[in-house]
Amino acid sequence: MDEFASIRHWTDGRQAAERQRAQGVVIGIGDDAAVVEAPPGESGALQWLLAVDTMVETVHFNSATMSEADVGWKALAANVSDLAAMGGVPRHALVSVSVPRSWEPARMRRLYDGLYACAEHYGVAVIGGDTTSSPAQLVVAVTAVGTVGAGKAISRAGAKPGDIVFVTGPVGMSAAGLHWLLAAGQSGDEAVPLAAAQAAGTASLVQAHRRPSPSVRAAQLLAARGTVTSLNDVSDGLASEAWEIAGASSVKLALRKSQLPVSGSLAAYAHSCGLDPLDWLLYGGEDYVLLGTISAEDAAPAKSAMAAEGMPMYLIGSVEPGEPGVDLIRTADGSGGGAGRPKERREPIRPKGYNHFA
Amino acid sequence: MDEFASIRHWTDGRQAAERQRAQGVVIGIGDDAAVVEAPPGESGALQWLLAVDTMVETVHFNSATMSEADVGWKALAANVSDLAAMGGVPRHALVSVSVPRSWEPARMRRLYDGLYACAEHYGVAVIGGDTTSSPAQLVVAVTAVGTVGAGKAISRAGAKPGDIVFVTGPVGMSAAGLHWLLAAGQSGDEAVPLAAAQAAGTASLVQAHRRPSPSVRAAQLLAARGTVTSLNDVSDGLASEAWEIAGASSVKLALRKSQLPVSGSLAAYAHSCGLDPLDWLLYGGEDYVLLGTISAEDAAPAKSAMAAEGMPMYLIGSVEPGEPGVDLIRTADGSGGGAGRPKERREPIRPKGYNHFA
Repeated sequence: MDEFASIRHWTDGRQAAERQRAQGVVIGIGDDAAVVEAPPGESGALQWLLAVDTMVETVHFNSATMSEADVGWKALAANVSDLAAMGGVPRHALVSVSVPRSWEPARMRRLYDGLYACAEHYGVAVIGGDTTSSPAQLVVAVTAVGTVGAGKAISRAGAKPGDIVFVTGPVGMSAAGLHWLLAAGQSGDEAVPLAAAQAAGTASLVQAHRRPSPSVRAAQLLAARGTVTSLNDVSDGLASEAWEIAGASSVKLALRKSQLPVSGSLAAYAHSCGLDPLDWLLYGGEDYVLLGTISAEDAAPAKSAMAAEGMPMYLIGSVEPGEPGVDLIRTADGSGGGAGRPKERREPIRPKGYNHFA
Repeated sequence: MDEFASIRHWTDGRQAAERQRAQGVVIGIGDDAAVVEAPPGESGALQWLLAVDTMVETVHFNSATMSEADVGWKALAANVSDLAAMGGVPRHALVSVSVPRSWEPARMRRLYDGLYACAEHYGVAVIGGDTTSSPAQLVVAVTAVGTVGAGKAISRAGAKPGDIVFVTGPVGMSAAGLHWLLAAGQSGDEAVPLAAAQAAGTASLVQAHRRPSPSVRAAQLLAARGTVTSLNDVSDGLASEAWEIAGASSVKLALRKSQLPVSGSLAAYAHSCGLDPLDWLLYGGEDYVLLGTISAEDAAPAKSAMAAEGMPMYLIGSVEPGEPGVDLIRTADGSGGGAGRPKERREPIRPKGYNHFA
């Protein structure tokens, strides 16, 4: 199959015309550029959101840690998460793939299976891309386009002293899943089967790594309240993202270790490895839950409103004045546990995370 | 330098705030996604154009054929050309780079020198991107966003029998330049200096390869006439692009060999190599001039109007009914050259071009 036949094989007939129409697509895949208009039926002025995320074979995945369909899903999901982290609605995606000659055609088709599954799940119209060969590793760069009400985008720069820090789901699961996959997958060059993870009790960790679920609905609900002052997705790890908010907002974030959401399977797996889960919680990354700050008076009401919709929201700390930074507050051991306030110990957290050039 | 410091080093202070404002940038580089609004002062409704183009080290360039700054320029220029080929105005760009650890920091900074030079030349605001490491080769994927008047985008599907086929500049120069560079650059791992090309008489060919100039102004002028029925940029070669118009429009394109624009330096270089320049003209690619069709009655007036603005427009053939395809018409040798019409010979041209999977 040549390049053009390949593109048709990957993309023809994969999305209903209605999906493309609903997203204002005038000209989609196949011309020099795609043409889109603002979706109909929206009230008020919109602004456009644009983000790009790239996955590189051997850097972000290998054949044991993820199937091709997982790679396709996650390449788009990472972008959808970036748009959610601005409070926006995902609408369009363009896909650049650089394909090694050693990749059999069926592998790329499966990659697009996962990509289109993610697109349908989040209502995204795939409208274009570019296809090149690659001398060695597969590289997938997805650009996503979304909309947000004019002036309503939530940046990372608005956190204020007194605000409450929240996350919309447990963190560290993706990193723990990757840890298990790297150990389990050393022998083969096929993706480690999910059944093996189920047998080991790590299925939810593995799925968090392979098929992250961006918090689009949670972002909509939170953004509509008008009280969220900053928002990031946890792509580089809680510590790194908290530092980004602290730096952009010129504030200190104080996180309470006891409030960090730890999934049961994460705790069990860490215990079985003899590891402290804190490292994964703070530095794991690729969780794609939302980390944000919200005005103190609306924190509890927002948490209730989220719960009513079946979505978790964990209040994990507070915003303080001071030099930009992130502190972790631990309740000191041996503090008695009586009626008095337990002693607390603070330590600064470094802005570590996965750093591509470190 | 870590990843975040690198991004700042490449991008901070590189574009005036006025450039970003003029392009409706609300939030640029540094958050989860960029936020843009339609530029002020435009009359009538707009539609958005989106395109992505990728350059891969060893596939599209190597250290001898192009400097880092050339790669940056061309990665953006290829996208600007895609937007021009829809009749649009380029506005925004996002840049995904996958950087080998072996690349010294100064090399990436120079890549961004070229990218920002191209951005300034075409009035494009660079608004975001993604930075990852790469195990081996550099990969640059640029996404460009532009605007076009609602309903005014020129696709490749509107060519009609009777229309005239045109190009907006000479073709084959980039391929000839690459041919010379590959021969000249075998020894070193530095980009072949332009002075060497000047000495060899191939400077214009080398510059066509390294610093292509998308036909944005020409596209604006032509689109405003309302008589252009299809438009492509010559990224994959004249034959391939003509085939795309023929296929999308369900027509035959008949090109006259004698009308194809051949630059003097291309002819001289081909002669010095003992090669027929026709191969470069038809199959060279990466010229980024425009290939299109225009109504017969407006072909000559459009050519005059373009000439008045100092821009070439070559009328190279016509559109015919029939099965989709492309024919080359040669004037037969020995046809006498008298007052009678010279004999003609037709041959079908294959849709060959640079194919990444061929």
